[in-house]
Amino acid sequence: MGARAGIVVTGTEVLTGRVADRNGPWLAEELRRLGVDVGTVLVVGDRPDDLRAALGFLASRGEDLVITTGGLGPTADDLTAEVVAEVQGRPSSLDPELERHIAGVVERLMARRGWRADPEATAAGTRKQAMVPAGATVLPPVGTAPGLVVPPVDGRPGPPVVVLPGPPSELQGMWPAALAAEPVQRALSGRGELRQQTVRLWRALESELAATLRQHEFDGLEITTCLRDGELEVVTRYAPEAQPGYDRLVAVLAEAHGAQLFSTGPTVDDLVAEALESRGLTVATAESCTSGLLVARLTERPGSSAWVLGGIASYANSAKEQLVGVPVQMLAEHGAVSTQVAAALAEGACERFGADVGVGITGIAGPGGGTPDKPVGTVHLCAVGLGSRQARSVVLPGDRSAVRQRSVTLAVHMLRELLVGGPPA
Amino acid sequence: MGARAGIVVTGTEVLTGRVADRNGPWLAEELRRLGVDVGTVLVVGDRPDDLRAALGFLASRGEDLVITTGGLGPTADDLTAEVVAEVQGRPSSLDPELERHIAGVVERLMARRGWRADPEATAAGTRKQAMVPAGATVLPPVGTAPGLVVPPVDGRPGPPVVVLPGPPSELQGMWPAALAAEPVQRALSGRGELRQQTVRLWRALESELAATLRQHEFDGLEITTCLRDGELEVVTRYAPEAQPGYDRLVAVLAEAHGAQLFSTGPTVDDLVAEALESRGLTVATAESCTSGLLVARLTERPGSSAWVLGGIASYANSAKEQLVGVPVQMLAEHGAVSTQVAAALAEGACERFGADVGVGITGIAGPGGGTPDKPVGTVHLCAVGLGSRQARSVVLPGDRSAVRQRSVTLAVHMLRELLVGGPPA
Repeated sequence: MGARAGIVVTGTEVLTGRVADRNGPWLAEELRRLGVDVGTVLVVGDRPDDLRAALGFLASRGEDLVITTGGLGPTADDLTAEVVAEVQGRPSSLDPELERHIAGVVERLMARRGWRADPEATAAGTRKQAMVPAGATVLPPVGTAPGLVVPPVDGRPGPPVVVLPGPPSELQGMWPAALAAEPVQRALSGRGELRQQTVRLWRALESELAATLRQHEFDGLEITTCLRDGELEVVTRYAPEAQPGYDRLVAVLAEAHGAQLFSTGPTVDDLVAEALESRGLTVATAESCTSGLLVARLTERPGSSAWVLGGIASYANSAKEQLVGVPVQMLAEHGAVSTQVAAALAEGACERFGADVGVGITGIAGPGGGTPDKPVGTVHLCAVGLGSRQARSVVLPGDRSAVRQRSVTLAVHMLRELLVGGPPA
Repeated sequence: MGARAGIVVTGTEVLTGRVADRNGPWLAEELRRLGVDVGTVLVVGDRPDDLRAALGFLASRGEDLVITTGGLGPTADDLTAEVVAEVQGRPSSLDPELERHIAGVVERLMARRGWRADPEATAAGTRKQAMVPAGATVLPPVGTAPGLVVPPVDGRPGPPVVVLPGPPSELQGMWPAALAAEPVQRALSGRGELRQQTVRLWRALESELAATLRQHEFDGLEITTCLRDGELEVVTRYAPEAQPGYDRLVAVLAEAHGAQLFSTGPTVDDLVAEALESRGLTVATAESCTSGLLVARLTERPGSSAWVLGGIASYANSAKEQLVGVPVQMLAEHGAVSTQVAAALAEGACERFGADVGVGITGIAGPGGGTPDKPVGTVHLCAVGLGSRQARSVVLPGDRSAVRQRSVTLAVHMLRELLVGGPPA
């Protein structure tokens, strides 16, 4: 293994889960592509002691590079630059040019909102953001906050620390400049290529997979597995010389789990989008309990307007009747949560949008609305089109959010089965 | 401050961002409610060295309790129980009763799928999950994996470690038993009440807020701020005796930022749902670039079927015409991305669903589709109903996902303004 890096994500809002961190994973993936291994991500709140300890821990682990995110704003709780300067033994001083630059940005923002703050208090915030540790490289601001590359002061051991802002767009915009900085280049010079490949199984049990893997030895492969919403991902990292071992792993998985293996690379969303795009087909949805989540997922992909016509979230029964064309009598006879209504939703989606393929979902996401006959988690799904039809009825475990999420993943697999085959959804 | 806890989240899939961790934030919030402060969350991959180092770090920080999540499955990469046993100096041995219990669960799962694995390999996975460190408390499995409470062996310093499974529903189901375990009770005996309150501002600048906060002293308050999608959250933690200081902070914020302050507690989603529910009103949407994200967000809440009738994701122009009733001529004259079409979508949503309030969104989420006149990020929104109308046109920064997300948040604020007033969206 070549170079190693550690990441410190700062911010009480991340620590308490009010904001999901997007920066740690983004940086870990960027570094992996460069052949740099990330072993640990630490999340700390806005407290100097905890941040200091996190930096010390990563230095003690022998990381070649440390990256921090967040804590560069004008408020007093943002203290990353200050703590990093202290840890690296480089006292900070005001960079007047940087101060003028930030003041200009803030002034324009305030003018646009017509806000008048106490000029002295505003200047204090700007001054705080323009403090630069002696000998650090300044990374020009993308928003108001500049980034920093701070090596330890001469004679002090430890990795250089790259200090990046918290907003993902600012961090990502600043990343090329961070990589180009000389101390970063030097720290990462030992890196080698690190490959990562994923095999994806649908509805396989982790215990089945464990039984298969136990019967073989795979040298030089770091194999990890993850089960989520019915998908089992086998992710393997390896150096280029272990490629034959990886090829053998794929052959073993195909042999033992061929009936469940649906991909040796692309996600189920990739497979569905590629099938629709390459064949010039269109899709539409009619969703009840998932209420727009499926069509939102199908349109996450750039360019999806070429194959997604739209969807109806028919939460109320009146919407199912009038907007999707589900017969009133069917609703009365079988109830809104029934295989019949799922099929009528799928057909209605096709017909109302003029789509080649339609998906219908109806169910009880809970926590209320369950009955002995139709408990919470009961979901009926149907996909129709191309002269074919897939129908599934399930009782899904978990809370409201889990039931909705799993229903959507199941629906995407039904589309996959209808469009490209593979393991039954 | 009373008791402190640290959390270690294990799993390469979390470290690399393929799976967003839900356990760290959930545990942090549960602990905070109990008056236990969480200072650091570490995320490590499935590597024994990194896990060992993470546990050592938290012990060195003087935490009273450490909680691990994940790494309890049958596959060889799952090694949390083994490493914790070693770190705490308690050798593991097979618990035959636990082994029988797990084998029964696995057998039933396999039978349901009709799968036949090599019995010896399956038994090896079960045996691995049934290894218990000497003197540890076993937490009964919710799925297949049991949890553990492992205090350090007599004479060894350090906090007890609670070992919990990775799937959130299993972890949450096991939490009461973990809390009831005697070593956990003892570790948390020093805890005191820790309050947390949130003030929410809409479209306030962080530099404005920093200027306000700099002009006052607030003893005993830990104030952190977070800007996201146009909302600025001010989260404050404090012991009960600092309540007067917190009340003063709220008064200062109301004085300086009254025009932007929309809540001293509930989220914007809470405010909108409560307004609709309490007044017996209904809402429907017609979304183009956000394609179902708004209606999916409005229906996240249990019971929302009482006030959300549904929505149309009218991605294709034909769907805008035929399903929402946007006039063909309007589309031809102004283009699909225009204030006129946003208004027609809002009105169409009201009319087609028979709703009291309708929201329309149309825009260019990118990365393609932008023009000099209508660059990527251009979004027009409209909310109509109750004899009132809100319209906004913006050019939002960020990538496709950011533009869609911010549009939805803006739409929810427009609903808030229409229904309950407060700062203009």
